Amino acid sequence: MIVALAGGVGGARLAVGLAALLPPDRLTIVVNTGDDFEHLGFSISPDLDTVMYTLAGVADAERGWGRRDETWRFMEALGELGGDDWFRLGDRDLAVHVIRTRALATGARLSDITRELADRLGVRHAIVPMADEPVRTFVVTDSGELPFQEYFVRRRCEPVVSGFRFEGAERARPPRVLASVMQRKDIEGVVVCPSNPFISIGPILAVSAIRDWLEARRCPVVAVSPIIGGEAVKGPTAKMFRELGLQPSALAVARHYGGLVDRWVIDEQDAREAREIEVLGKHVMMTNTLMTDRVRSIELARTVIDLVRTARTPR
Amino acid sequence: MIVALAGGVGGARLAVGLAALLPPDRLTIVVNTGDDFEHLGFSISPDLDTVMYTLAGVADAERGWGRRDETWRFMEALGELGGDDWFRLGDRDLAVHVIRTRALATGARLSDITRELADRLGVRHAIVPMADEPVRTFVVTDSGELPFQEYFVRRRCEPVVSGFRFEGAERARPPRVLASVMQRKDIEGVVVCPSNPFISIGPILAVSAIRDWLEARRCPVVAVSPIIGGEAVKGPTAKMFRELGLQPSALAVARHYGGLVDRWVIDEQDAREAREIEVLGKHVMMTNTLMTDRVRSIELARTVIDLVRTARTPR
Repeated sequence: MIVALAGGVGGARLAVGLAALLPPDRLTIVVNTGDDFEHLGFSISPDLDTVMYTLAGVADAERGWGRRDETWRFMEALGELGGDDWFRLGDRDLAVHVIRTRALATGARLSDITRELADRLGVRHAIVPMADEPVRTFVVTDSGELPFQEYFVRRRCEPVVSGFRFEGAERARPPRVLASVMQRKDIEGVVVCPSNPFISIGPILAVSAIRDWLEARRCPVVAVSPIIGGEAVKGPTAKMFRELGLQPSALAVARHYGGLVDRWVIDEQDAREAREIEVLGKHVMMTNTLMTDRVRSIELARTVIDLVRTARTPR
Repeated sequence: MIVALAGGVGGARLAVGLAALLPPDRLTIVVNTGDDFEHLGFSISPDLDTVMYTLAGVADAERGWGRRDETWRFMEALGELGGDDWFRLGDRDLAVHVIRTRALATGARLSDITRELADRLGVRHAIVPMADEPVRTFVVTDSGELPFQEYFVRRRCEPVVSGFRFEGAERARPPRVLASVMQRKDIEGVVVCPSNPFISIGPILAVSAIRDWLEARRCPVVAVSPIIGGEAVKGPTAKMFRELGLQPSALAVARHYGGLVDRWVIDEQDAREAREIEVLGKHVMMTNTLMTDRVRSIELARTVIDLVRTARTPR
């Protein structure tokens, strides 16, 4: 069993590779829910949906969120009627939000709802929210503390970031299905996907039972750097490093995770940083980490799984 | 000022004619909300929407509900995900339900929400729900008592009807805007549109303040028969009459309303019934009542308005 920690696009793409190489009973994908929010009356879980749609093969790869072959008739009509249209919801995508919102309102667990939706979409591997209880990421910025989607979508990551707060993380516990995975003795390793360390992986690590479990681990943690050549493939990761006073680099990511990661996969472009990461006591593997298609996702996943399996001791 | 009582399609079509002939400050369209229900988490008001879309010129005339140029991507995706798809919601139509549901959830009045939606759609005449409080129609059938949409859409009006119950009607009061219209001294007349007397007009009359006001009226009530040649133009009106042991006819409709209606407009096809309706003490006007297009709606509305204005005493 391998446990992967994932956010949105980068996490989803590595998850596709892992899912292609590991049978369903050998992979658990733990997904960030800090981006979740309530909007227009819907309970929206962007990262869960990105991972689910991507594994199901129905994601829009170019846009990076939502479903492919999507239409926007609902949004158009909503805008005409004066409704809030800053967060775009596709007509097909909306069905997931409606089902999830109804199920949550009747007391169902987010993890169970996710399992059912994924089943319907033909996804056989376990996609598990980091918690059933709501955790909400707030971004501390020069425009004040902003709810995540307010910062991310409405204000296009423009405010300058100085910190993060994960509301509800202290109370949040891993869903039952994840808690039972965490108790297993046969976990080969944990994979930290190339997702934003602050807002995608950060909230997962803010769930204390998950963080405690990782710190007390008896298996290696292998991470893939989300920074390539000093920039993020997508999203505000590099911008956030800079605003926090750090040079964005694979090394900065390695320093950020510190002792929580044992082995690093960084891009060949960042070869000159390998030595410094090794100085931190980490094993470093270099490869092409840019997952431009399914084949590249599988190749990177193979590298990651090999690293997990060749690690002798966790630290 | 003329006050029209309306249900779905028949009411909406006559309302179009009335709105073409009367300025916005001279017409109030009171709409049935007994069909309203909560579905998939949405607060849906089918008759309000039919009247609003029809007056706005965006209704689907053939289908008889929803918007024209509609798409069904949300419903398709919902069905694929195992969601409830027996009540069809178009992608554009959905925007109205989302806005209404959000506004109701934040404590807004249905009448205010309806006014705002109608404004956005360019409707200048007042469309007013019969009450802000929920009233819910239940149909008593040989399959038990069914919530209205369960009977009407899901079971396609197939169960045999023996009665109706309008839950919440006793507590319901006319919205403030309607209550103030009802207090006016300059009301020329009330028009009962050719809607189903049991399930479209019935719930409106079950609101005691409206019924009391009609019974104590000082203006004529003019009604258009929804039965033409023994059949309803659309919907289960004729079927319901039969199941209740009555021959469906303009006469049966006149008997059903009794003293609440002063003057009748019936179709030329039903000329032989005019005498019997007149025996009930009613003035009867015969014309072509089938509103196949906007021109016919206006012609019928003109006949109705003339009847209102030529009536000398209410009864």
